[in-house]
Amino acid sequence: MGRVTTRVPRTRVDVARDALVVRPDTVAVEEPLEVRVGEQPVTTTMRTPGDDFDLALGHLLTEGMVGSAHDVATMMHCTDVGPDGSPTFNVVEAALSPGVALLRPARERTESMTSACGVCGAASLDAVRTASRFDVGADPVTLDATVLAGLPDALRERQPVFERTGGVHAAALATPDGTLLAVREDVGRHNAVDKVVGALSRERELPFAGTVLVVSARASFEIVQKAAVVGVPAVVAVGAPTSLAVELAADAGITLLAFTREHRFSVYARPDRVTGTA
Amino acid sequence: MGRVTTRVPRTRVDVARDALVVRPDTVAVEEPLEVRVGEQPVTTTMRTPGDDFDLALGHLLTEGMVGSAHDVATMMHCTDVGPDGSPTFNVVEAALSPGVALLRPARERTESMTSACGVCGAASLDAVRTASRFDVGADPVTLDATVLAGLPDALRERQPVFERTGGVHAAALATPDGTLLAVREDVGRHNAVDKVVGALSRERELPFAGTVLVVSARASFEIVQKAAVVGVPAVVAVGAPTSLAVELAADAGITLLAFTREHRFSVYARPDRVTGTA
Repeated sequence: MGRVTTRVPRTRVDVARDALVVRPDTVAVEEPLEVRVGEQPVTTTMRTPGDDFDLALGHLLTEGMVGSAHDVATMMHCTDVGPDGSPTFNVVEAALSPGVALLRPARERTESMTSACGVCGAASLDAVRTASRFDVGADPVTLDATVLAGLPDALRERQPVFERTGGVHAAALATPDGTLLAVREDVGRHNAVDKVVGALSRERELPFAGTVLVVSARASFEIVQKAAVVGVPAVVAVGAPTSLAVELAADAGITLLAFTREHRFSVYARPDRVTGTA
Repeated sequence: MGRVTTRVPRTRVDVARDALVVRPDTVAVEEPLEVRVGEQPVTTTMRTPGDDFDLALGHLLTEGMVGSAHDVATMMHCTDVGPDGSPTFNVVEAALSPGVALLRPARERTESMTSACGVCGAASLDAVRTASRFDVGADPVTLDATVLAGLPDALRERQPVFERTGGVHAAALATPDGTLLAVREDVGRHNAVDKVVGALSRERELPFAGTVLVVSARASFEIVQKAAVVGVPAVVAVGAPTSLAVELAADAGITLLAFTREHRFSVYARPDRVTGTA
Protein backbone atom coordinates (compact mmCIF):
# COMPACT_ATOMS: atom_id res chain seq x y z
CA MET A 1 0.00 0.00 0.00
CA GLY A 2 1.20 3.49 -0.78
CA ARG A 3 2.45 5.85 1.86
CA VAL A 4 0.19 8.55 3.30
CA THR A 5 3.03 10.88 4.25
CA THR A 6 6.66 11.07 3.24
CA ARG A 7 9.81 12.89 4.37
CA VAL A 8 11.40 15.43 2.05
CA PRO A 9 14.42 17.73 2.38
CA ARG A 10 13.44 21.23 3.40
CA THR A 11 15.22 24.52 4.13
CA ARG A 12 13.35 26.59 6.70
CA VAL A 13 13.99 30.33 6.44
CA ASP A 14 13.11 33.03 8.96
CA VAL A 15 13.85 36.39 7.42
CA ALA A 16 13.24 38.37 10.62
CA ARG A 17 15.76 36.28 12.54
CA ASP A 18 18.10 35.78 9.59
CA ALA A 19 17.88 32.08 10.41
CA LEU A 20 18.14 29.16 8.06
CA VAL A 21 17.60 25.56 9.18
CA VAL A 22 17.94 22.54 6.91
CA ARG A 23 15.99 19.55 8.07
CA PRO A 24 13.48 17.08 6.65
CA ASP A 25 9.78 17.82 6.71
CA THR A 26 6.75 15.55 6.51
CA VAL A 27 4.44 16.20 3.56
CA ALA A 28 1.20 14.57 2.44
CA VAL A 29 1.66 12.13 -0.40
CA GLU A 30 -0.14 12.98 -3.65
CA GLU A 31 -0.25 10.37 -6.38
CA PRO A 32 -2.60 9.71 -9.29
CA LEU A 33 -5.21 6.99 -8.90
CA GLU A 34 -6.97 5.61 -11.92
CA VAL A 35 -10.29 3.92 -11.20
CA ARG A 36 -11.49 1.36 -13.72
CA VAL A 37 -14.73 -0.54 -13.95
CA GLY A 38 -13.97 -3.69 -15.88
CA GLU A 39 -11.49 -2.53 -18.49
CA GLN A 40 -12.91 0.99 -18.70
CA PRO A 41 -11.15 3.88 -16.91
CA VAL A 42 -13.79 6.06 -15.23
CA THR A 43 -11.59 8.64 -13.54
CA THR A 44 -8.02 9.62 -12.78
CA THR A 45 -7.66 11.67 -9.62
CA MET A 46 -4.71 13.04 -7.66
CA ARG A 47 -5.14 11.51 -4.21
CA THR A 48 -3.42 10.58 -0.97
CA PRO A 49 -2.80 6.83 -1.08
CA GLY A 50 -4.63 4.70 1.47
CA ASP A 51 -8.33 3.86 1.59
CA ASP A 52 -8.16 3.51 -2.18
CA PHE A 53 -11.06 1.05 -2.24
CA ASP A 54 -13.18 3.48 -0.19
CA LEU A 55 -12.24 6.18 -2.67
CA ALA A 56 -13.07 4.09 -5.73
CA LEU A 57 -16.35 2.81 -4.31
CA GLY A 58 -17.34 6.23 -2.98
CA HIS A 59 -16.57 7.86 -6.32
CA LEU A 60 -18.84 5.40 -8.13
CA LEU A 61 -21.59 6.11 -5.56
CA THR A 62 -21.31 9.91 -5.40
CA GLU A 63 -21.14 10.16 -9.18
CA GLY A 64 -24.33 8.11 -9.44
CA MET A 65 -22.66 5.27 -11.35
CA VAL A 66 -23.62 2.54 -8.85
CA GLY A 67 -26.37 2.56 -6.22
CA SER A 68 -24.96 0.28 -3.52
CA ALA A 69 -21.69 -1.21 -2.30
CA HIS A 70 -23.19 -4.56 -3.27
CA ASP A 71 -23.15 -3.51 -6.93
CA VAL A 72 -19.37 -3.89 -6.82
CA ALA A 73 -18.29 -7.53 -6.55
CA THR A 74 -14.53 -7.09 -6.21
CA MET A 75 -11.90 -4.36 -6.19
CA MET A 76 -8.21 -4.98 -6.71
CA HIS A 77 -5.06 -2.94 -7.10
CA CYS A 78 -3.18 -3.39 -10.33
CA THR A 79 0.28 -4.21 -9.02
CA ASP A 80 2.06 -2.15 -11.61
CA VAL A 81 5.68 -1.21 -11.01
CA GLY A 82 7.09 2.31 -10.61
CA PRO A 83 10.44 3.68 -11.82
CA ASP A 84 12.18 2.26 -8.73
CA GLY A 85 10.85 -1.26 -9.39
CA SER A 86 8.42 -1.33 -6.45
CA PRO A 87 4.63 -1.58 -6.89
CA THR A 88 2.82 1.75 -7.23
CA PHE A 89 -0.77 0.61 -6.53
CA ASN A 90 -2.04 3.52 -8.58
CA VAL A 91 -4.84 1.71 -10.41
CA VAL A 92 -7.95 0.21 -8.78
CA GLU A 93 -9.97 -2.13 -10.92
CA ALA A 94 -13.58 -2.70 -9.81
CA ALA A 95 -15.71 -5.56 -11.13
CA LEU A 96 -19.48 -5.16 -11.01
CA SER A 97 -21.65 -7.88 -9.48
CA PRO A 98 -23.41 -10.31 -11.86
CA GLY A 99 -26.35 -8.64 -13.58
CA VAL A 100 -25.27 -5.11 -12.54
CA ALA A 101 -24.52 -2.41 -15.10
CA LEU A 102 -23.36 1.17 -14.49
CA LEU A 103 -26.37 3.44 -13.86
CA ARG A 104 -24.76 6.00 -16.12
CA PRO A 105 -21.53 6.02 -18.12
CA ALA A 106 -18.37 7.81 -17.01
CA ARG A 107 -18.44 11.49 -17.81
CA GLU A 108 -16.50 12.13 -20.98
CA ARG A 109 -15.41 15.66 -20.38
CA THR A 110 -13.65 16.17 -23.65
CA GLU A 111 -16.22 14.43 -25.82
CA SER A 112 -17.69 16.37 -28.69
CA MET A 113 -21.15 17.64 -27.93
CA THR A 114 -23.68 17.88 -30.69
CA SER A 115 -25.78 20.61 -29.09
CA ALA A 116 -26.07 23.82 -31.04
CA CYS A 117 -24.43 26.90 -29.57
CA GLY A 118 -27.82 28.25 -28.48
CA VAL A 119 -28.15 25.65 -25.77
CA CYS A 120 -24.52 24.85 -25.08
CA GLY A 121 -24.34 26.64 -21.71
CA ALA A 122 -27.28 24.63 -20.47
CA ALA A 123 -25.64 21.49 -21.83
CA SER A 124 -22.46 22.32 -19.92
CA LEU A 125 -24.34 22.75 -16.68
CA ASP A 126 -26.28 19.55 -17.32
CA ALA A 127 -22.97 17.84 -17.95
CA VAL A 128 -21.75 18.70 -14.46
CA ARG A 129 -25.04 18.00 -12.70
CA THR A 130 -25.98 14.49 -11.72
CA ALA A 131 -29.60 13.99 -10.74
CA SER A 132 -30.14 12.41 -7.33
CA ARG A 133 -32.42 9.40 -7.03
CA PHE A 134 -33.36 10.54 -3.53
CA ASP A 135 -35.64 13.30 -2.27
CA VAL A 136 -33.26 14.67 0.36
CA GLY A 137 -35.54 17.69 0.78
CA ALA A 138 -38.13 15.39 2.38
CA ASP A 139 -35.68 14.06 5.00
CA PRO A 140 -37.36 14.86 8.36
CA VAL A 141 -34.11 15.09 10.35
CA THR A 142 -33.70 17.96 12.82
CA LEU A 143 -30.26 19.21 13.82
CA ASP A 144 -29.29 20.82 17.09
CA ALA A 145 -27.36 24.07 16.66
CA THR A 146 -24.88 23.27 19.43
CA VAL A 147 -24.11 19.85 17.98
CA LEU A 148 -23.65 21.35 14.50
CA ALA A 149 -21.30 24.04 15.81
CA GLY A 150 -19.13 21.35 17.42
CA LEU A 151 -18.70 19.11 14.37
CA PRO A 152 -15.61 20.83 12.89
CA ASP A 153 -13.72 20.48 16.19
CA ALA A 154 -14.72 16.81 16.40
CA LEU A 155 -13.44 16.34 12.85
CA ARG A 156 -10.21 18.18 13.56
CA GLU A 157 -9.42 15.81 16.43
CA ARG A 158 -9.42 12.96 13.95
CA GLN A 159 -7.13 14.39 11.28
CA PRO A 160 -3.74 12.78 11.98
CA VAL A 161 -2.36 13.46 8.51
CA PHE A 162 -3.30 17.14 8.74
CA GLU A 163 -1.59 17.28 12.13
CA ARG A 164 1.64 16.10 10.57
CA THR A 165 1.51 17.92 7.23
CA GLY A 166 -0.98 20.80 7.29
CA GLY A 167 -1.69 19.74 3.74
CA VAL A 168 -4.82 17.60 3.56
CA HIS A 169 -8.56 18.05 3.70
CA ALA A 170 -10.90 15.87 5.75
CA ALA A 171 -14.52 14.76 5.55
CA ALA A 172 -16.80 12.93 7.98
CA LEU A 173 -20.30 11.55 8.03
CA ALA A 174 -22.02 12.23 11.36
CA THR A 175 -25.29 11.46 13.09
CA PRO A 176 -27.54 14.23 14.47
CA ASP A 177 -26.16 13.56 17.97
CA GLY A 178 -22.65 14.41 16.75
CA THR A 179 -21.23 10.91 16.45
CA LEU A 180 -18.73 10.65 13.60
CA LEU A 181 -19.55 7.44 11.71
CA ALA A 182 -16.49 7.66 9.46
CA VAL A 183 -13.64 10.12 8.88
CA ARG A 184 -11.20 10.23 5.98
CA GLU A 185 -8.40 12.56 4.84
CA ASP A 186 -7.08 13.35 1.37
CA VAL A 187 -5.16 16.02 -0.54
CA GLY A 188 -8.36 16.47 -2.59
CA ARG A 189 -11.55 17.81 -0.99
CA HIS A 190 -13.74 15.69 -3.24
CA ASN A 191 -11.62 12.60 -2.62
CA ALA A 192 -12.06 12.94 1.16
CA VAL A 193 -15.84 13.00 0.58
CA ASP A 194 -15.70 10.02 -1.78
CA LYS A 195 -13.62 8.06 0.74
CA VAL A 196 -15.98 8.69 3.63
CA VAL A 197 -19.01 7.78 1.50
CA GLY A 198 -17.30 4.60 0.31
CA ALA A 199 -16.41 3.68 3.89
CA LEU A 200 -19.95 4.11 5.22
CA SER A 201 -21.51 2.37 2.21
CA ARG A 202 -20.07 -0.93 3.42
CA GLU A 203 -22.24 -0.72 6.55
CA ARG A 204 -25.26 1.19 5.34
CA GLU A 205 -27.34 1.29 2.16
CA LEU A 206 -28.09 4.53 0.32
CA PRO A 207 -29.69 6.95 0.94
CA PHE A 208 -27.65 8.11 3.94
CA ALA A 209 -30.83 9.62 5.44
CA GLY A 210 -30.48 11.63 8.64
CA THR A 211 -26.72 12.07 8.31
CA VAL A 212 -24.52 15.16 8.12
CA LEU A 213 -21.52 15.54 5.81
CA VAL A 214 -18.78 17.56 7.50
CA VAL A 215 -15.95 19.01 5.38
CA SER A 216 -12.81 20.82 6.56
CA ALA A 217 -12.80 22.99 3.45
CA ARG A 218 -15.14 25.18 1.46
CA ALA A 219 -18.58 24.07 0.27
CA SER A 220 -18.43 24.01 -3.52
CA PHE A 221 -20.95 22.72 -6.02
CA GLU A 222 -19.36 19.30 -6.30
CA ILE A 223 -19.42 18.69 -2.54
CA VAL A 224 -23.14 19.49 -2.27
CA GLN A 225 -23.83 17.44 -5.37
CA LYS A 226 -22.10 14.40 -3.91
CA ALA A 227 -24.23 14.78 -0.77
CA ALA A 228 -27.42 14.98 -2.83
CA VAL A 229 -26.58 11.92 -4.92
CA VAL A 230 -26.05 9.69 -1.86
CA GLY A 231 -29.04 11.14 0.03
CA VAL A 232 -27.27 13.20 2.73
CA PRO A 233 -29.65 15.99 3.90
CA ALA A 234 -27.08 18.33 5.52
CA VAL A 235 -23.60 19.65 4.74
CA VAL A 236 -21.44 21.45 7.32
CA ALA A 237 -18.41 23.28 5.91
CA VAL A 238 -15.64 25.04 7.81
CA GLY A 239 -14.96 27.34 4.85
CA ALA A 240 -17.03 29.54 2.57
CA PRO A 241 -19.80 28.41 0.22
CA THR A 242 -19.96 29.16 -3.49
CA SER A 243 -23.03 30.50 -5.28
CA LEU A 244 -23.73 27.24 -7.05
CA ALA A 245 -23.39 25.26 -3.82
CA VAL A 246 -26.04 27.49 -2.25
CA GLU A 247 -28.27 27.21 -5.31
CA LEU A 248 -28.02 23.43 -5.49
CA ALA A 249 -28.57 23.02 -1.73
CA ALA A 250 -31.73 25.16 -1.97
CA ASP A 251 -32.95 23.23 -5.04
CA ALA A 252 -32.24 19.82 -3.55
CA GLY A 253 -33.44 20.68 -0.05
CA ILE A 254 -30.08 20.23 1.67
CA THR A 255 -29.33 22.15 4.87
CA LEU A 256 -26.08 23.98 4.11
CA LEU A 257 -23.87 25.42 6.85
CA ALA A 258 -20.63 27.27 6.11
CA PHE A 259 -18.09 29.29 8.12
CA THR A 260 -18.68 26.80 10.96
CA ARG A 261 -16.08 27.83 13.54
CA GLU A 262 -16.10 27.79 17.33
CA HIS A 263 -19.70 28.54 18.32
CA ARG A 264 -20.82 30.23 15.11
CA PHE A 265 -22.07 29.20 11.69
CA SER A 266 -24.10 30.55 8.79
CA VAL A 267 -26.98 28.61 7.23
CA TYR A 268 -27.38 29.14 3.49
CA ALA A 269 -30.23 26.72 2.76
CA ARG A 270 -33.00 24.94 4.66
CA PRO A 271 -32.44 26.61 8.08
CA ASP A 272 -35.78 25.11 9.22
CA ARG A 273 -34.01 21.86 10.20
CA VAL A 274 -31.78 23.67 12.70
CA THR A 275 -33.18 23.65 16.25
CA GLY A 276 -32.08 25.04 19.59
CA THR A 277 -31.66 28.66 18.56
CA ALA A 278 -33.69 31.65 19.64
CA MET B 1 -20.54 39.10 -18.49
CA GLY B 2 -21.25 36.85 -15.52
CA ARG B 3 -21.17 38.11 -11.97
CA VAL B 4 -18.13 37.55 -9.76
CA THR B 5 -20.08 37.64 -6.50
CA THR B 6 -23.76 37.34 -5.66
CA ARG B 7 -26.04 37.95 -2.68
CA VAL B 8 -27.78 34.98 -1.08
CA PRO B 9 -30.10 34.64 1.92
CA ARG B 10 -28.25 33.53 5.02
CA THR B 11 -29.09 32.81 8.66
CA ARG B 12 -26.21 33.57 10.98
CA VAL B 13 -26.23 31.56 14.21
CA ASP B 14 -24.14 32.19 17.34
CA VAL B 15 -24.71 29.30 19.73
CA ALA B 16 -22.82 30.89 22.62
CA ARG B 17 -24.96 34.02 22.50
CA ASP B 18 -28.13 32.21 21.48
CA ALA B 19 -28.32 34.73 18.65
CA LEU B 20 -29.79 34.29 15.21
CA VAL B 21 -29.57 36.95 12.52
CA VAL B 22 -31.15 36.64 9.09
CA ARG B 23 -29.50 38.81 6.48
CA PRO B 24 -28.04 38.40 3.01
CA ASP B 25 -24.42 37.41 2.51
CA THR B 26 -22.05 37.86 -0.42
CA VAL B 27 -20.69 34.63 -1.88
CA ALA B 28 -18.29 33.94 -4.73
CA VAL B 29 -20.02 32.87 -7.92
CA GLU B 30 -19.17 29.40 -9.19
CA GLU B 31 -20.36 28.38 -12.65
CA PRO B 32 -19.17 25.87 -15.21
CA LEU B 33 -17.09 27.10 -18.13
CA GLU B 34 -16.59 24.96 -21.17
CA VAL B 35 -13.57 25.83 -23.29
CA ARG B 36 -13.65 24.79 -26.93
CA VAL B 37 -11.04 24.98 -29.63
CA GLY B 38 -12.92 25.11 -32.89
CA GLU B 39 -15.81 22.75 -32.33
CA GLN B 40 -13.90 20.54 -29.89
CA PRO B 41 -14.50 20.91 -26.14
CA VAL B 42 -11.14 20.73 -24.35
CA THR B 43 -12.22 21.23 -20.74
CA THR B 44 -15.16 22.02 -18.49
CA THR B 45 -14.18 23.68 -15.25
CA MET B 46 -16.10 25.17 -12.32
CA ARG B 47 -14.91 28.75 -12.22
CA THR B 48 -15.70 32.27 -11.03
CA PRO B 49 -16.98 34.22 -14.06
CA GLY B 50 -14.88 37.11 -15.28
CA ASP B 51 -11.53 36.98 -17.06
CA ASP B 52 -12.89 34.01 -18.98
CA PHE B 53 -10.63 34.71 -21.96
CA ASP B 54 -7.60 34.82 -19.65
CA LEU B 55 -8.76 31.51 -18.19
CA ALA B 56 -9.28 29.85 -21.58
CA LEU B 57 -6.00 31.11 -23.01
CA GLY B 58 -4.09 30.32 -19.82
CA HIS B 59 -5.51 26.81 -19.71
CA LEU B 60 -4.38 26.14 -23.29
CA LEU B 61 -0.90 27.46 -22.39
CA THR B 62 -0.43 25.72 -19.02
CA GLU B 63 -1.69 22.42 -20.44
CA GLY B 64 0.84 22.70 -23.26
CA MET B 65 -1.81 22.83 -25.99
CA VAL B 66 -0.62 26.14 -27.48
CA GLY B 67 2.75 27.86 -27.13
CA SER B 68 1.86 31.54 -27.42
CA ALA B 69 -1.11 33.91 -27.14
CA HIS B 70 -0.59 34.52 -30.86
CA ASP B 71 -1.55 30.92 -31.57
CA VAL B 72 -5.13 31.88 -30.71
CA ALA B 73 -6.69 34.16 -33.32
CA THR B 74 -10.03 34.88 -31.63
CA MET B 75 -12.00 33.97 -28.52
CA MET B 76 -15.73 34.51 -28.16
CA HIS B 77 -18.42 33.70 -25.64
CA CYS B 78 -21.24 31.54 -26.90
CA THR B 79 -24.23 33.69 -25.96
CA ASP B 80 -26.30 30.75 -24.83
CA VAL B 81 -29.33 31.43 -22.68
CA GLY B 82 -29.92 30.24 -19.09
CA PRO B 83 -33.18 29.11 -17.46
CA ASP B 84 -34.15 32.74 -16.78
CA GLY B 85 -33.73 33.73 -20.44
CA SER B 86 -30.58 35.81 -19.92
CA PRO B 87 -27.20 34.91 -21.48
CA THR B 88 -25.01 32.62 -19.36
CA PHE B 89 -21.65 33.16 -21.10
CA ASN B 90 -20.57 29.71 -19.95
CA VAL B 91 -18.82 28.60 -23.13
CA VAL B 92 -15.69 30.15 -24.62
CA GLU B 93 -14.85 29.19 -28.17
CA ALA B 94 -11.25 29.78 -29.25
CA ALA B 95 -10.18 29.76 -32.89
CA LEU B 96 -6.54 28.98 -33.67
CA SER B 97 -4.53 31.26 -35.95
CA PRO B 98 -4.03 30.19 -39.56
CA GLY B 99 -1.52 27.36 -39.83
CA VAL B 100 -1.57 26.64 -36.06
CA ALA B 101 -2.55 23.24 -34.69
CA LEU B 102 -2.82 22.14 -31.05
CA LEU B 103 0.59 20.99 -29.78
CA ARG B 104 -1.17 18.07 -28.13
CA PRO B 105 -4.80 16.93 -28.02
CA ALA B 106 -7.10 17.53 -25.08
CA ARG B 107 -6.63 14.97 -22.32
CA GLU B 108 -9.28 12.31 -22.61
CA ARG B 109 -9.47 11.24 -19.01
CA THR B 110 -12.02 8.50 -19.49
CA GLU B 111 -10.55 7.12 -22.69
CA SER B 112 -9.70 3.46 -22.77
CA MET B 113 -6.01 2.85 -22.43
CA THR B 114 -4.38 0.01 -24.27
CA SER B 115 -1.46 -0.41 -21.90
CA ALA B 116 -1.15 -3.74 -20.18
CA CYS B 117 -1.74 -3.85 -16.44
CA GLY B 118 2.00 -4.19 -15.82
CA VAL B 119 2.62 -0.61 -16.88
CA CYS B 120 -0.72 1.01 -16.15
CA GLY B 121 0.42 2.95 -13.09
CA ALA B 122 3.21 4.50 -15.10
CA ALA B 123 0.71 5.23 -17.86
CA SER B 124 -1.57 6.96 -15.35
CA LEU B 125 1.25 9.14 -14.12
CA ASP B 126 2.30 9.88 -17.68
CA ALA B 127 -1.29 10.83 -18.39
CA VAL B 128 -1.21 13.55 -15.74
CA ARG B 129 2.30 14.80 -16.56
CA THR B 130 2.84 17.22 -19.40
CA ALA B 131 6.43 17.65 -20.48
CA SER B 132 7.69 21.24 -20.48
CA ARG B 133 9.38 22.61 -23.56
CA PHE B 134 11.53 24.82 -21.33
CA ASP B 135 14.54 24.07 -19.15
CA VAL B 136 13.35 26.00 -16.09
CA GLY B 137 16.14 24.42 -14.08
CA ALA B 138 18.64 26.48 -16.07
CA ASP B 139 16.92 29.80 -15.29
CA PRO B 140 19.67 31.92 -13.64
CA VAL B 141 17.26 34.05 -11.57
CA THR B 142 18.14 34.75 -7.93
CA LEU B 143 15.44 35.56 -5.38
CA ASP B 144 15.82 37.67 -2.28
CA ALA B 145 14.45 36.01 0.85
CA THR B 146 12.84 39.19 2.18
CA VAL B 147 11.06 39.83 -1.13
CA LEU B 148 9.85 36.23 -1.27
CA ALA B 149 8.52 36.38 2.29
CA GLY B 150 6.51 39.49 1.42
CA LEU B 151 4.78 38.14 -1.70
CA PRO B 152 1.74 36.57 0.03
CA ASP B 153 0.92 39.86 1.78
CA ALA B 154 1.26 41.72 -1.51
CA LEU B 155 -1.09 39.21 -3.09
CA ARG B 156 -3.56 39.45 -0.23
CA GLU B 157 -3.86 43.20 -0.73
CA ARG B 158 -5.12 42.56 -4.24
CA GLN B 159 -7.82 39.98 -3.50
CA PRO B 160 -11.08 41.99 -3.54
CA VAL B 161 -13.31 38.96 -4.07
CA PHE B 162 -11.71 37.12 -1.16
CA GLU B 163 -12.24 40.21 1.00
CA ARG B 164 -15.96 40.07 0.30
CA THR B 165 -16.53 36.30 0.29
CA GLY B 166 -13.65 34.46 2.00
CA GLY B 167 -14.26 31.89 -0.71
CA VAL B 168 -11.76 32.25 -3.53
CA HIS B 169 -8.14 31.51 -4.24
CA ALA B 170 -5.72 33.90 -5.88
CA ALA B 171 -2.59 33.66 -7.99
CA ALA B 172 -0.04 36.23 -9.16
CA LEU B 173 3.01 36.36 -11.37
CA ALA B 174 5.74 38.50 -9.84
CA THR B 175 9.20 39.78 -10.72
CA PRO B 176 12.22 39.12 -8.47
CA ASP B 177 11.88 42.66 -7.05
CA GLY B 178 8.38 41.82 -5.79
CA THR B 179 6.33 43.61 -8.46
CA LEU B 180 3.09 41.78 -9.18
CA LEU B 181 2.70 41.67 -12.97
CA ALA B 182 -0.82 40.22 -12.85
CA VAL B 183 -3.22 38.99 -10.16
CA ARG B 184 -6.36 36.89 -10.62
CA GLU B 185 -8.91 35.27 -8.31
CA ASP B 186 -11.08 32.18 -8.79
CA VAL B 187 -12.96 29.55 -6.79
CA GLY B 188 -10.53 27.03 -8.30
CA ARG B 189 -6.82 27.13 -7.42
CA HIS B 190 -5.83 25.92 -10.88
CA ASN B 191 -8.18 28.41 -12.57
CA ALA B 192 -6.56 31.33 -10.73
CA VAL B 193 -3.19 30.14 -12.09
CA ASP B 194 -4.56 29.70 -15.61
CA LYS B 195 -6.09 33.20 -15.52
CA VAL B 196 -2.89 34.87 -14.42
CA VAL B 197 -0.86 33.02 -17.06
CA GLY B 198 -3.40 33.94 -19.73
CA ALA B 199 -3.29 37.58 -18.66
CA LEU B 200 0.50 37.85 -18.78
CA SER B 201 0.74 35.92 -22.05
CA ARG B 202 -0.82 38.88 -23.87
CA GLU B 203 2.21 41.00 -22.96
CA ARG B 204 5.00 38.49 -22.80
CA GLU B 205 6.00 35.39 -24.76
CA LEU B 206 6.72 32.06 -23.08
CA PRO B 207 8.82 31.05 -21.25
CA PHE B 208 8.05 33.34 -18.31
CA ALA B 209 11.72 33.28 -17.36
CA GLY B 210 12.74 35.01 -14.14
CA THR B 211 9.19 35.20 -12.76
CA VAL B 212 7.63 33.85 -9.57
CA LEU B 213 4.18 32.24 -9.38
CA VAL B 214 2.50 33.12 -6.06
CA VAL B 215 -0.54 31.09 -4.93
CA SER B 216 -2.79 31.72 -1.92
CA ALA B 217 -3.37 28.01 -1.45
CA ARG B 218 -1.38 24.82 -1.22
CA ALA B 219 1.26 23.74 -3.74
CA SER B 220 -0.05 20.63 -5.43
CA PHE B 221 1.32 18.74 -8.39
CA GLU B 222 -0.86 20.52 -10.92
CA ILE B 223 0.23 23.98 -9.78
CA VAL B 224 3.93 23.13 -10.11
CA GLN B 225 3.27 21.44 -13.44
CA LYS B 226 1.56 24.53 -14.83
CA ALA B 227 4.57 26.61 -13.75
CA ALA B 228 6.97 24.20 -15.47
CA VAL B 229 5.00 24.15 -18.72
CA VAL B 230 5.05 27.96 -19.08
CA GLY B 231 8.67 28.27 -17.94
CA VAL B 232 8.21 29.81 -14.46
CA PRO B 233 11.29 28.98 -12.32
CA ALA B 234 9.80 29.59 -8.85
CA VAL B 235 6.54 28.88 -7.01
CA VAL B 236 5.61 30.51 -3.69
CA ALA B 237 2.67 28.94 -1.85
CA VAL B 238 0.98 30.12 1.33
CA GLY B 239 -0.15 26.59 2.18
CA ALA B 240 1.49 23.18 2.37
CA PRO B 241 3.16 21.30 -0.48
CA THR B 242 2.32 17.76 -1.54
CA SER B 243 4.87 15.02 -2.14
CA LEU B 244 4.40 15.08 -5.90
CA ALA B 245 4.71 18.86 -6.03
CA VAL B 246 8.07 18.58 -4.25
CA GLU B 247 9.17 15.75 -6.53
CA LEU B 248 8.21 17.55 -9.73
CA ALA B 249 9.80 20.83 -8.55
CA ALA B 250 13.05 18.99 -7.84
CA ASP B 251 12.93 17.16 -11.19
CA ALA B 252 12.12 20.28 -13.20
CA GLY B 253 14.47 22.59 -11.26
CA ILE B 254 11.76 24.86 -9.87
CA THR B 255 12.38 26.70 -6.60
CA LEU B 256 9.42 25.70 -4.41
CA LEU B 257 8.44 27.68 -1.30
CA ALA B 258 5.53 26.69 0.93
CA PHE B 259 4.12 27.83 4.30
CA THR B 260 5.11 31.36 3.27
CA ARG B 261 3.66 33.48 6.08
CA GLU B 262 4.82 36.68 7.72
CA HIS B 263 8.60 36.48 7.69
CA ARG B 264 8.96 32.73 7.36
CA PHE B 265 8.91 30.14 4.60
CA SER B 266 10.18 26.67 3.81
CA VAL B 267 12.03 25.83 0.61
CA TYR B 268 11.38 22.33 -0.73
CA ALA B 269 13.38 22.45 -3.96
CA ARG B 270 16.23 24.48 -5.46
CA PRO B 271 17.05 26.58 -2.38
CA ASP B 272 20.25 27.70 -4.15
CA ARG B 273 18.31 30.50 -5.90
CA VAL B 274 17.32 32.08 -2.58
CA THR B 275 19.71 34.82 -1.45
CA GLY B 276 19.93 37.13 1.53
CA THR B 277 19.88 34.52 4.27
CA ALA B 278 22.64 33.54 6.63
